[in-house]
Amino acid sequence: MQPPQFKDLDLSSCILLGPGPSMVPPRVLRALAQPPVGYLDPEIIVVMDELKQLLQYAFQTKNEFTIPISGTGTAGMETAISNFVEPGDRVLTAINGFFGERLADMASRYGAQVERLERPWGEVFTPEEFDAALKDGGYKLVTLVHGETSTGTVQTRVDEIAEVVHLHGALLILDTVASLGGVPIEIDEWDVDICYSGSQKCLSAPPGLAPFTANARAMDVFQQRKTKVTNWYLDISGLSKYWLEPHAYHHTGPINMFYALREALRLVAEEGIENCWARHRSVAEGLWAGLEKLGLPPRVPLDFRMPSLTTPKLPDGLDEAAIRKQLLEDYNIEIAGGFGPLAGQIWRIGLMGFSARRENVTLLLAALGELL
Amino acid sequence: MQPPQFKDLDLSSCILLGPGPSMVPPRVLRALAQPPVGYLDPEIIVVMDELKQLLQYAFQTKNEFTIPISGTGTAGMETAISNFVEPGDRVLTAINGFFGERLADMASRYGAQVERLERPWGEVFTPEEFDAALKDGGYKLVTLVHGETSTGTVQTRVDEIAEVVHLHGALLILDTVASLGGVPIEIDEWDVDICYSGSQKCLSAPPGLAPFTANARAMDVFQQRKTKVTNWYLDISGLSKYWLEPHAYHHTGPINMFYALREALRLVAEEGIENCWARHRSVAEGLWAGLEKLGLPPRVPLDFRMPSLTTPKLPDGLDEAAIRKQLLEDYNIEIAGGFGPLAGQIWRIGLMGFSARRENVTLLLAALGELL
Repeated sequence: MQPPQFKDLDLSSCILLGPGPSMVPPRVLRALAQPPVGYLDPEIIVVMDELKQLLQYAFQTKNEFTIPISGTGTAGMETAISNFVEPGDRVLTAINGFFGERLADMASRYGAQVERLERPWGEVFTPEEFDAALKDGGYKLVTLVHGETSTGTVQTRVDEIAEVVHLHGALLILDTVASLGGVPIEIDEWDVDICYSGSQKCLSAPPGLAPFTANARAMDVFQQRKTKVTNWYLDISGLSKYWLEPHAYHHTGPINMFYALREALRLVAEEGIENCWARHRSVAEGLWAGLEKLGLPPRVPLDFRMPSLTTPKLPDGLDEAAIRKQLLEDYNIEIAGGFGPLAGQIWRIGLMGFSARRENVTLLLAALGELL
Repeated sequence: MQPPQFKDLDLSSCILLGPGPSMVPPRVLRALAQPPVGYLDPEIIVVMDELKQLLQYAFQTKNEFTIPISGTGTAGMETAISNFVEPGDRVLTAINGFFGERLADMASRYGAQVERLERPWGEVFTPEEFDAALKDGGYKLVTLVHGETSTGTVQTRVDEIAEVVHLHGALLILDTVASLGGVPIEIDEWDVDICYSGSQKCLSAPPGLAPFTANARAMDVFQQRKTKVTNWYLDISGLSKYWLEPHAYHHTGPINMFYALREALRLVAEEGIENCWARHRSVAEGLWAGLEKLGLPPRVPLDFRMPSLTTPKLPDGLDEAAIRKQLLEDYNIEIAGGFGPLAGQIWRIGLMGFSARRENVTLLLAALGELL
């Protein structure tokens, strides 16, 4: 068999303003490229412990079980579902976009009886809706997407929703893949039980890790499982032994990604999480004002519009795919189209992490001005 | 909440001679640190296609479904089990070490009726044993570990075992986590149906991807599943749509790890896979000769001794943990101890990928000479 011959990597330096990955700061890329040490080396145990503390800060939680899962955001979602669902459990999935659907599919694969609480794509839920939906009782879990990457909404009143969920004896799983670091999130203050995110969006690390946290209430429920977790790789009991004492082998952690996420979270800690949220907001407001002027107003009302992902409503007849292609080919700018019921009707413009900078907004608006 | 403050990463430059990760060549670290592009960018689709071809070369296969799984080696194992096991299926697991046990545990979690074919740790199997074990019929899968990282054996006669497995109507899953790239493996020539590995051992990329391949016979069996794959993240039907046409979104791939594994596999292709196998063998022979002189002869007979991981038999009364600690602290060399039934009886010395260099053998033997 002949060995294939390919050239050196020679990639465009892309300005990533899509739904993630976002751009990665040079400091993070430098950390990523440090030579790996062994997965139980005394030095990596220190790095892992620091990483846990930095994640606790990003989530605003004291939860002991706060670790990065060794996979991308969807692996974080699957950690939540596979560990807390047992066959026959009732799960209420709130669905107002693509990722709510994914949660429903995943929960049913693990044997849950899934009930759907639905809203059209682009809307959000009220606590009262959960109260009504949970009334017939017996639910173990409720899933909710905080920032819906498919629509650009951010769920409001999560603290009140968590209270309702707990009144009905269930646990709340919150998806913050597109929002952690870019939108105010306070896991302890809101009393969210289980939450996951991705490394490659508002945290500005490369894709490959999924921040995850679960509180004591959730861990108690986990301890009461009657069956083994089907998913071996994501089983919290094995992950705990690696990340907490006794630091026993479970799987070989992606060491270099640990370095990178640690450095990305150090940047968040240096900036201060409140300042990081405020930067995302202020940069997004610049984008929103510019889009209005271009006749592309954000589709989501201000009350629940997500700063980290903006979805302008496109005028009828616009060849939106052609413009995205030109942005990529002529300006090296990536933005994304809509899909599902919003295909052709919106763009998805991410201003996440290191991509959330004023110069990127100015450039994008100027480029759109030239193309439209 | 106060932001945690930690210093710049400042890690020892460790000489990794344990069971993996192995050392990563500078070219691979440079590729790893290239800025990411979008997960469906036209440029990344080209990178992914090249990566597939390079993996086909490493596996010596023409299998179309040859991709890296977005997780570490255990995620590769779980891809094999979760996609090919349905509840009630009979699975024969060959167990002669730690990873055979893990396969049995994993298969039973997905509902398999697991039968164990056992050999003491440190031995290997014959085709005749499989023929006898499969006689009572009805098996769907047989699992076999090619290179057992816990013991240092390499399974011989895999081609004959595959033939026996097929005569009995089953599929063969082969674990090559510790052997791919370091020991001759010919997936098509041997007619192995499903095979997985890890990026961080003989291929010298960082940990975080699991090379995976399945042949047409296996894909046909997959197509006949009656139930959805429980594991959403590792479901081959979703992964196929991302890696093959139409390149549709499934999860956000770990882009930087794609860069790194592509570069690591380019190094294998430039060296030539046969030369890469020969280098692992010749460097290991140097280690074996030196260990004999030190009174630490390899425990595994030459016939099925794995070049990429050597397990010297330790003399009674040696404080082996103290010596490993000194190697790490005074010489920056990582080697590993034994565990399970071999705890305290062996070391595990890896010469994998970029770690498989003569200077590392010379240094390790000299250091051991000073310490013993």
